[in-house]
Amino acid sequence: MRHGQGRAGRAAMAAILAGGMAVTAVAQTAPAPKPAAAQDGTVALDGVRVPLSDLMSREGADYLRHLIVDKPFGAPAADIRAERARQDGIMRDFLAPMRRRYAVDIAEQRIGGIVTDVVTPSAGIAPENRDRVLINLHGGGFTTGGRSASLVESVPLAAIMRIKVISVDYRMSPEYAFPAGSEDVEAVYRALLKTYRPEHMVLYGCSAGGMLTAEVLSRFHQRKLPMPAAAGVFCASLGALTAGDSALLAGPLNGFTFPPPPPGQRPAMPPMAYLAAARADDPQAYPLVSPDTLRAFPPTLFITGTRAFEMSAALNSHNALARVGVESQFHAWDGMFHGFFYNADLPESREAYAVMAKFFATHMAR
Amino acid sequence: MRHGQGRAGRAAMAAILAGGMAVTAVAQTAPAPKPAAAQDGTVALDGVRVPLSDLMSREGADYLRHLIVDKPFGAPAADIRAERARQDGIMRDFLAPMRRRYAVDIAEQRIGGIVTDVVTPSAGIAPENRDRVLINLHGGGFTTGGRSASLVESVPLAAIMRIKVISVDYRMSPEYAFPAGSEDVEAVYRALLKTYRPEHMVLYGCSAGGMLTAEVLSRFHQRKLPMPAAAGVFCASLGALTAGDSALLAGPLNGFTFPPPPPGQRPAMPPMAYLAAARADDPQAYPLVSPDTLRAFPPTLFITGTRAFEMSAALNSHNALARVGVESQFHAWDGMFHGFFYNADLPESREAYAVMAKFFATHMAR
Repeated sequence: MRHGQGRAGRAAMAAILAGGMAVTAVAQTAPAPKPAAAQDGTVALDGVRVPLSDLMSREGADYLRHLIVDKPFGAPAADIRAERARQDGIMRDFLAPMRRRYAVDIAEQRIGGIVTDVVTPSAGIAPENRDRVLINLHGGGFTTGGRSASLVESVPLAAIMRIKVISVDYRMSPEYAFPAGSEDVEAVYRALLKTYRPEHMVLYGCSAGGMLTAEVLSRFHQRKLPMPAAAGVFCASLGALTAGDSALLAGPLNGFTFPPPPPGQRPAMPPMAYLAAARADDPQAYPLVSPDTLRAFPPTLFITGTRAFEMSAALNSHNALARVGVESQFHAWDGMFHGFFYNADLPESREAYAVMAKFFATHMAR
Repeated sequence: MRHGQGRAGRAAMAAILAGGMAVTAVAQTAPAPKPAAAQDGTVALDGVRVPLSDLMSREGADYLRHLIVDKPFGAPAADIRAERARQDGIMRDFLAPMRRRYAVDIAEQRIGGIVTDVVTPSAGIAPENRDRVLINLHGGGFTTGGRSASLVESVPLAAIMRIKVISVDYRMSPEYAFPAGSEDVEAVYRALLKTYRPEHMVLYGCSAGGMLTAEVLSRFHQRKLPMPAAAGVFCASLGALTAGDSALLAGPLNGFTFPPPPPGQRPAMPPMAYLAAARADDPQAYPLVSPDTLRAFPPTLFITGTRAFEMSAALNSHNALARVGVESQFHAWDGMFHGFFYNADLPESREAYAVMAKFFATHMAR
């Protein structure tokens, strides 16, 4: 054990160990300065201090401290053009060191009528990947990230796997709304099906791109298109972006507080503008609502972190796939936050790339 | 979305969605009544209220509320005999409804000189499992749970998989210390190897039993014994029982508070009495410290929950196996706590049994 602690703390912790369920007995042995829980089971975290996780790399801890203390990204802009420019700037700053680390070539190519960025490894495509391709759907809340977050999500995998990655510049809000993005990805996929076998393709993305990955798979199922070999739903779930414990904890764990919700209400993520008109029970928007849809999913990898607001929703989706017998994998890194692997300088990010690369390579047909 | 929220909350949440990394920008748009973070990155959770997770089943939510509000298990006893009796009573209360749900026969049998409970399905062993066996190592902090938690961990899988489960009554503290438990399990395993092929055996356990599972695998590796087909490390990790974010959050999320640690120190789980004399760098006690040891591990399943103090440590172990190329699976249920699946009345527990059964059945040789 790395760190010491007070006698009372030791007694409380020892009590936890006295038996599986004894965890709840500890309240009676530790002094509670105020009532810790309401009658409805809501717990109050007053007085709780959470230091940086001791499971992070040195680089991960330094970076999380920087994010929490220095808040380097500024505030979102109200105007969509200004906000896109701001986010593109943030992405450029992630991309620059990434391109020094990972040698790739990037070319614009229109596929199925849709603009894409095609990222290929400078070292050449590996022989076993000559007939394979990854399709990336970028993050950015369905409002930003076109051709910027795209590259941040594509460059590492193209170089590490020595494979072609095609990132789709799909339509977003506020100009467009669901299912415009799905239509664009379908157009690209149909065009690629003329050259690639579906079992040689993988679909993946982070945040809005993770949600869109799931939405597009649902669309393929409905339209009887063949499924790709595998999917990567990163920084997202198969349903709403957030739910459960992590939705409430991620903000405070990253150093900011939400105003409390109205009495009796649960703080909740508002629907994204892109999905505002979609029905909550539409499997094309939220595949999680339909076990029949999930049953058609290819093997799926979830990537998140313990300080990411989507973690609980991603866990829940992973369990939902298990319920219907679909293979899935879940990996999260302690202390890591929404979209952490945009920063390729973190060892945690490079571990995540390795997990992604292995999962995708394993599931594409020879 | 199920719940409404105030305008300020919506603005803050919308800002999160504006881009992958914008999560950290929100602090500047939401009113912060006090400084939320210290210069070292420690975050203060004052004012944060966490209601029951909206991802739990109705039964799961009712039970967690009961645990948080009613604290039904009382306080640990100081005397070991009294504490064992108390824990055995808690286990009897879990076992009674479990035995109504899952029909099994239980027989005491000495194997390799060690007392075990042999649990067999009343419906008979499935034909494909005639030559297979699961070996259970019970929880209870290496101090309690012999022949009580044992049954709670063995009965559901014996009935669901229609397979024989042998639960080992290994030596515990304070009478004995590491590696006494490992020696006992080795004796049982060596005896079973005379009848069963290793690829027809699985080793699993919860909490201390999950730790012991990992410790025993490390011992088998060192002694060049053949590895079993798979392992289940439940409510535990391959190293210390707790670390990282969940170690600090699980207590408060279950409705109790720890006294703060001395300034500059991290609240930490004290070493368990059983392991007090073990070196922190001994792979026989903490296999996580040795990549070479981990490389020899069989496919491993981790089971935990978002309110379980071991969750971060389990995630970290799952990632450590991925690093050395060993297959592993991680499942956690939102809102669930240390050892939740001792309660078979929770749908989450029965989902966990199904995940365990599938993982074990898949990995044992035909």
